[in-house]
Amino acid sequence: MTDSATLNPAISTSPAQEQLPTDGTPPQSPELGLLQQSEQFVWRHIGPDPKQIEQMLAVLGLGSLQELVEKTVPTAIRTPQPLRLGSPRTEQQVLAELKEIAAQNQVWRSFLGMGYSNCLTPPVIQRNILENPGWYTQYTPYQAEIAQGRLEALLNFQTMVIDLTGMEIANASLLDEATAAAEAMTLSYGLAAKGSSIFWVDRGCHPQTLAVLQTRAEPLGIQIRVADPAEFRLDGESFGLLLQYPNTSGEIRDYHQLVEQAHQRGILVTVAADLLSLTLLKPPGEWGADIVVGSTQRFGIPLGYGGPHAAYFATREAHKRLLPGRLVGVSQDAQGKPALRLALQTREQHIRRDKATSNICTAQVLLAVMASLYAVYHGPKGLRKMALRIYGQAHRLAASIRELGYKVGPEHFFDTFWVQGQSPAQIQEIQARAVQQRINLRQIDERTVGISLDEATTAVDIWDLFQLFTGSNLPFEEREGWDPNQPLPDLSRSLPPSLIRTTPYLTHPVFNRYHSETELLRYIHRLQSRDLSLTHSMIPLGSCTMKLNATVEMIPVSWPEFAQIHPFVPLEQTRGYQTLFAQLEQMLAEITGFAGVSLQPNAGSQGEYAGLLAIRRYHQARGEGHRQVCLIPTSAHGTNPASAVMAGMRVVSVACDAAGNIDIEDLRSKAERHREQLAALMITYPSTHGVFEEGIRDICQIIHEAGGQVYMDGANLNAQVGLCRPAELGADVCHLNLHKTFCIPHGGGGPGVGPIGVAAHLLPYLPGHPFLPGCRGPVSAAPWGSASILPISWAYIRLMGSAGLTLATQVAILNANYIAKRLDPYYPVLYKGSTGLVAHECILDLRPLKKSAGIEVEDVAKRLMDYGFHAPTISWPVAGTMMVEPTESESLEELDRFCEAMIAIRQEIAAIERGEADPVHNLLKQAPHTAEVVTADQWDRPYSRSLAAYPAPWVKAHKFWPSVSRIDNAYGDRHLVCSCQPWLED
Amino acid sequence: MTDSATLNPAISTSPAQEQLPTDGTPPQSPELGLLQQSEQFVWRHIGPDPKQIEQMLAVLGLGSLQELVEKTVPTAIRTPQPLRLGSPRTEQQVLAELKEIAAQNQVWRSFLGMGYSNCLTPPVIQRNILENPGWYTQYTPYQAEIAQGRLEALLNFQTMVIDLTGMEIANASLLDEATAAAEAMTLSYGLAAKGSSIFWVDRGCHPQTLAVLQTRAEPLGIQIRVADPAEFRLDGESFGLLLQYPNTSGEIRDYHQLVEQAHQRGILVTVAADLLSLTLLKPPGEWGADIVVGSTQRFGIPLGYGGPHAAYFATREAHKRLLPGRLVGVSQDAQGKPALRLALQTREQHIRRDKATSNICTAQVLLAVMASLYAVYHGPKGLRKMALRIYGQAHRLAASIRELGYKVGPEHFFDTFWVQGQSPAQIQEIQARAVQQRINLRQIDERTVGISLDEATTAVDIWDLFQLFTGSNLPFEEREGWDPNQPLPDLSRSLPPSLIRTTPYLTHPVFNRYHSETELLRYIHRLQSRDLSLTHSMIPLGSCTMKLNATVEMIPVSWPEFAQIHPFVPLEQTRGYQTLFAQLEQMLAEITGFAGVSLQPNAGSQGEYAGLLAIRRYHQARGEGHRQVCLIPTSAHGTNPASAVMAGMRVVSVACDAAGNIDIEDLRSKAERHREQLAALMITYPSTHGVFEEGIRDICQIIHEAGGQVYMDGANLNAQVGLCRPAELGADVCHLNLHKTFCIPHGGGGPGVGPIGVAAHLLPYLPGHPFLPGCRGPVSAAPWGSASILPISWAYIRLMGSAGLTLATQVAILNANYIAKRLDPYYPVLYKGSTGLVAHECILDLRPLKKSAGIEVEDVAKRLMDYGFHAPTISWPVAGTMMVEPTESESLEELDRFCEAMIAIRQEIAAIERGEADPVHNLLKQAPHTAEVVTADQWDRPYSRSLAAYPAPWVKAHKFWPSVSRIDNAYGDRHLVCSCQPWLED
Repeated sequence: MTDSATLNPAISTSPAQEQLPTDGTPPQSPELGLLQQSEQFVWRHIGPDPKQIEQMLAVLGLGSLQELVEKTVPTAIRTPQPLRLGSPRTEQQVLAELKEIAAQNQVWRSFLGMGYSNCLTPPVIQRNILENPGWYTQYTPYQAEIAQGRLEALLNFQTMVIDLTGMEIANASLLDEATAAAEAMTLSYGLAAKGSSIFWVDRGCHPQTLAVLQTRAEPLGIQIRVADPAEFRLDGESFGLLLQYPNTSGEIRDYHQLVEQAHQRGILVTVAADLLSLTLLKPPGEWGADIVVGSTQRFGIPLGYGGPHAAYFATREAHKRLLPGRLVGVSQDAQGKPALRLALQTREQHIRRDKATSNICTAQVLLAVMASLYAVYHGPKGLRKMALRIYGQAHRLAASIRELGYKVGPEHFFDTFWVQGQSPAQIQEIQARAVQQRINLRQIDERTVGISLDEATTAVDIWDLFQLFTGSNLPFEEREGWDPNQPLPDLSRSLPPSLIRTTPYLTHPVFNRYHSETELLRYIHRLQSRDLSLTHSMIPLGSCTMKLNATVEMIPVSWPEFAQIHPFVPLEQTRGYQTLFAQLEQMLAEITGFAGVSLQPNAGSQGEYAGLLAIRRYHQARGEGHRQVCLIPTSAHGTNPASAVMAGMRVVSVACDAAGNIDIEDLRSKAERHREQLAALMITYPSTHGVFEEGIRDICQIIHEAGGQVYMDGANLNAQVGLCRPAELGADVCHLNLHKTFCIPHGGGGPGVGPIGVAAHLLPYLPGHPFLPGCRGPVSAAPWGSASILPISWAYIRLMGSAGLTLATQVAILNANYIAKRLDPYYPVLYKGSTGLVAHECILDLRPLKKSAGIEVEDVAKRLMDYGFHAPTISWPVAGTMMVEPTESESLEELDRFCEAMIAIRQEIAAIERGEADPVHNLLKQAPHTAEVVTADQWDRPYSRSLAAYPAPWVKAHKFWPSVSRIDNAYGDRHLVCSCQPWLED
Repeated sequence: MTDSATLNPAISTSPAQEQLPTDGTPPQSPELGLLQQSEQFVWRHIGPDPKQIEQMLAVLGLGSLQELVEKTVPTAIRTPQPLRLGSPRTEQQVLAELKEIAAQNQVWRSFLGMGYSNCLTPPVIQRNILENPGWYTQYTPYQAEIAQGRLEALLNFQTMVIDLTGMEIANASLLDEATAAAEAMTLSYGLAAKGSSIFWVDRGCHPQTLAVLQTRAEPLGIQIRVADPAEFRLDGESFGLLLQYPNTSGEIRDYHQLVEQAHQRGILVTVAADLLSLTLLKPPGEWGADIVVGSTQRFGIPLGYGGPHAAYFATREAHKRLLPGRLVGVSQDAQGKPALRLALQTREQHIRRDKATSNICTAQVLLAVMASLYAVYHGPKGLRKMALRIYGQAHRLAASIRELGYKVGPEHFFDTFWVQGQSPAQIQEIQARAVQQRINLRQIDERTVGISLDEATTAVDIWDLFQLFTGSNLPFEEREGWDPNQPLPDLSRSLPPSLIRTTPYLTHPVFNRYHSETELLRYIHRLQSRDLSLTHSMIPLGSCTMKLNATVEMIPVSWPEFAQIHPFVPLEQTRGYQTLFAQLEQMLAEITGFAGVSLQPNAGSQGEYAGLLAIRRYHQARGEGHRQVCLIPTSAHGTNPASAVMAGMRVVSVACDAAGNIDIEDLRSKAERHREQLAALMITYPSTHGVFEEGIRDICQIIHEAGGQVYMDGANLNAQVGLCRPAELGADVCHLNLHKTFCIPHGGGGPGVGPIGVAAHLLPYLPGHPFLPGCRGPVSAAPWGSASILPISWAYIRLMGSAGLTLATQVAILNANYIAKRLDPYYPVLYKGSTGLVAHECILDLRPLKKSAGIEVEDVAKRLMDYGFHAPTISWPVAGTMMVEPTESESLEELDRFCEAMIAIRQEIAAIERGEADPVHNLLKQAPHTAEVVTADQWDRPYSRSLAAYPAPWVKAHKFWPSVSRIDNAYGDRHLVCSCQPWLED
């Protein structure tokens, strides 16, 4: 939470300024005032136009959106207080406002290191991945047949990590280096012998990593010991240790013996390593590390004031089933062709629930894709040359400074070194000169500064840094006898052989052929063409809210004033960010009704964890630390129990009734039974079954009366904005998914942002950060998590204003009910509210089809691909069902196309039921159909090629070809392969 | 030419700073200096890496690039002086330099009108069209089967123009309003009765239109009469007239009677109309106009300091064969399905040569696509509402100012009006206040200013403008009693019924369904998926140089400092542009060896025209205006003779010999015969046959001795840069295609830029502009043509430096020779040089295949689509051949893929020759094969489906599906349909 900046008063304009009706009457086509055009964006964001809204209401037998709201959202639930977020703004106004905010940030040259480096995002990657909706609007690749492009990019990512670290297996990807290190700690802890609870941490670790580890250790009973690795006391109580390589001061040490000692005692060794340095240094895998973690940020990802970036996690094959996060693996499709998909999903937290050791869910796919393409573009030679250049620059500069009489160290380093002055005053003077030059140096202690170089460092930078120490301030052009052109350095002159890498890496052809921009551009587009995204058709993922990610919201993300800032620069350089944070926090507080908001959690799961941690800290502060029972309905998403366990809680399940609502009696009795230990209830609202439970206020009251706190899962907030507020319903804390409700794109599976809102009594327990005053344990590496994508949500809220946001919620509910109404005759809709309506999503029951036709929900999902659609959520929250969430951004035409596809598929199933189609060799079981299959010379299927390929007339204009046939998941899990293979050559 | 700004001295660094070898030895993999990484971009731009270059040289039996150059470029031709353009720069350096230059421009609020309006480019269009290589790297849609997406967008453009103007047929598109008006004049002149040579021009025309008309009229003997339309004397000597509607002062008049009078005398009426105003005003088509022209700039195209924008040209069906520019028409494909392609190509100048009435070639496709999508996004209701808002704003402001006591007019206006002060001093004061507010008003005369409003005008703008006249400078927030919210105005209260539009427009569904951003995004991507671009594979168009358009070169085009500037702002607001122009002119002068360069021509054809005009003016100035014979080799591109005729010259053909070179004896005798009338020779170098003619110096000498000037067509400059210079070869003037050699992307058929370089004696005859001091007749509407895309070429030259540019030329020649060598055994290469090598392109002879297998060159072109390639240039310069220009940006792998496709096709032909394949029902004659055809239930072709779809193993990974089968051009020309049809609904 940001306390300092003041909210722009323009944000809370009076309701009188609203342009759109908020009373729920169907809005008219926007009548523009003479000199105004302010609400135009609202109708760009919302799919159906006013006339279509009327049509859809008529289908539902309703007269107005207000009536719809009254019948779906129980009166007792609705907020009495309309949003106070001002009127809608135009795209130009919002860009202008953001430009002004951005201008308050100062982009200095930072040489701060600590796990964050400047780097040069190749423009071809920036424009064709980061700024390309064909990539950033993709969903998580669960439907692998229509996600082969990004799965290949992620396989490249894994291969890159495996090669550079020298490990056997790597995931793709984690949130940041600090949480990756925490995941390594908990993985190690899971394997520890009983009674071993000490985790040794290198005092040379980056400070934020240490802080996150401490946060994560406490609820689990892990004891962190911080020491110089030479002083680790590896005894029977120790289960693991963490080294930083090179460490935060730049030092490179040989840990060979330490690792041997650890292994002798069964202690797992984790190394947090800088990936670029591993092109030159002996990789941890070669000296015995069990786990290697780190950030791939410097592989072309903008600093972004802390994120988002992709972290990596590599380990031994033996631990593959404990690997946190997502893992891409090679399998084969129905034709026996190699095909990629997410592997070993049974190990993931959404399946293992409270048995999970991690709650990680969102990966950082878009950033991992960028980092992998960066490696593809530079190739092993380019990366090595880059590393050598940085290494050479650093040693050249260090030597020059040493010649001036400063003490410079460490002895062995890559890109980072420290300079000790003779007095604090001398260092103060240097820092003062640095400020004048708009240069950030790391202040290590009062006599020491740190300097970390990177890809972006130029000869002029080196010179200017040198001048800080000479004090002469001579511009580069006037230098004398200082030649920026020197040959690449010989490593063996300054590093012992034991630290020098001798093994090859990135030898796969994919890292050795796309080095011209044209070739990389085509590779990117070839991959893109294999992935379905929102640029093709709706992705009606229940609980995931795949709405429009408007271009105007995305534009500021690329601005250097947001993108090029190191997370640990002094706060006075980020006034713009502070303003943005404060305003966004206040906007989200207004929407949720809470007293305060923390933007730090950089994924929904992190939000859950941060929220539960606040509850834990609250109980502890009141001397009720024994309250550790967390009630969770059986219908909850699996990350809920996983997060609860991480927060040191014990999960007790609460039953649901036939209508999908929490069984209040069961809740009451469980609350009673655990009255003394009750910490919290976790509840999703509207329920994961897509219904506004009428009893929510009662539920909250039961919990509060039993001394517990109510944690609301905000996955379904899109159904609430402007209509009701979690805080008013009784929740004490709620996490929001900015990548769902507030327009941050899914990026193919990340980045996400999961802020939490809390009631006033929980404010003191929000996560802090070591680089902020009054640190409480952080949950993420950076103080404001994925700061650089927060302008997206800020922009969305400004563009829509109170009225637009409220209208969006209404239309989201309308769209879901329209689909429910149209599809109910074909696939019964489960869990309607008392008025027969659903909230913003609906669950279609496909279970009877198994008996009647042998058809599984997955068959329908795969057949939808032939129609050009991404399937809704399948088999969650109820096995054998589909959960459809259309969002407000889908037009009536698109909803109709989807319904027609579903109805046509139902007819295909009916043919099986009637015995007219073969129970095995039918259109569904053999879906999806690739172009190769349908154009094959042999066709021995009992249905026609044209039905396989073009099952409806409109498919011709919208055809999207899956690039592989149905993938055999089990095969791939049995024969686990998680890195680039020779067949990927073409 | 810009005289004022000085060249950044950094540009002419000494050759000693060069990083890359210029002596032609195969460059080594770039060894980076310790602190430098400067030449990295060169190897991003160039396709083959150093190792591949060596491999390719070996295939050619050559030891070095230097040897290649020596054997392809005759010694006498080569320049003794290496380029002096400095060393290569990094992408970051170039962006930083351009940012500095851009910062010298001042983005004021301009209300200048004169045919240019601020507008709001919808971000979704900006990012997904203008900034999307999938669109901007497309070629001109000659191969229509793989260009259906942009052809549909252009059909929408034509429909939009037809509907709004009320005409019967429209093209897509022309360069700017002024040249479109000139095209209308020459079309009218072509239909004129003998002896009619007077063209009446409304004195209310925009001044730049008038200037361009005068330039164009003089060489053709047309007499321009400028007058108030009420004073036109329409007699037998008049053949046409031009009206501006609304006129440059904003006035809307009823021309109904004037048109009737004109028609009675057989005089054609052209109207230059503002497209947005026609949503409210009775369109010219309804009051009898024969031709309507104008700009579509305000439909979402950034001002760009003058361009590029798309102009339109609409007329009656009767004149369809005289319509200048490109025309998209509906035809049908081999399956009888509707399909689009360029219609009536027989009327185009490249076929009609000196019988052509226009030399127009490049259209402004990318901008036309954007404008059409803007209309699609807003729809008829949105556009009308926008127009009403602007109209209302203008009338509100005009009334407010009138109330202050100023004289305000005209009586009837749309968005533009004038304000007359009581004295020049009063107006001076107002202008001084405007300068303080960074507002540009038009100075009409010393007592009058003009104000023109537009889509971007806000309530605050209106208020600030009002304050200029009150003199009180009150900020908007402190206004009192001035409500920006008023209902939309009622037109009939201020306009007579005869001026008000009552007819519908844009009624086709395409303009009424894509109004949400999601829907438009998907429509854009659906269209894009039908078009092959450089993101898929090489487009080896001979003479078109489809090289890499690097992302970093494209980025600055979107910067507001370049994009948001009106072309007629005072020069002191565009210091940045002036610097950029001066530097680019000097760079191009260095490359070509000329004394000066004009950047004004906004297409290659305009460059040709401007160059010939300079020659004409030169002769006239010396009293030799009778020199009007222009010698043109028979091998020249058809635009050459067309331009010569426009420049008032008489074309005399010169023969070519069997080797494709100019027949020097024929040249000598023609030069002798026309000695007294000889104006110029037009010659392409290297020749259109892809050879460095050894006799070029002799040829120039012959012409000079006969008193003529040598005009060099710069289409093939990519083979010369760094190796030889047109001026050193003897040329007096040369046009360059920045969209070929200097990386401006083709945009699917425009924009282009065609600057000319001239020798010192021609400097005084370069085109000027009425808004610059010392005006000579301009050839384009804006002083620097398409200014906003010039940063692309500037960046390319800076990134490559002298060494990179020279290396690019060498590799371009290498790539062409590699292809020639590999394909010669299958398709004999025509026209090699004396050493058996070609220049930067090669001509493959397919003529024998007609006899041996009945295969035409077009069949091979269409079959290439099945392999995923765009065909090379076909049947030019020699019928029955293909001309391949790979450019330096294509990698060895891509060249090999192309060669393999061509060789495989040759084998398919051999099967026909051997009688194994059917002479009619074969893979070539029935190509291309769509997915629908290959997946059809019926397959009655004598070859297999898999051969049709995937003729080589690597095609699977690179498959691009043509969206229609072979298109029947003749059918479409017989049944000409040039606007949206009902079947386009889906």
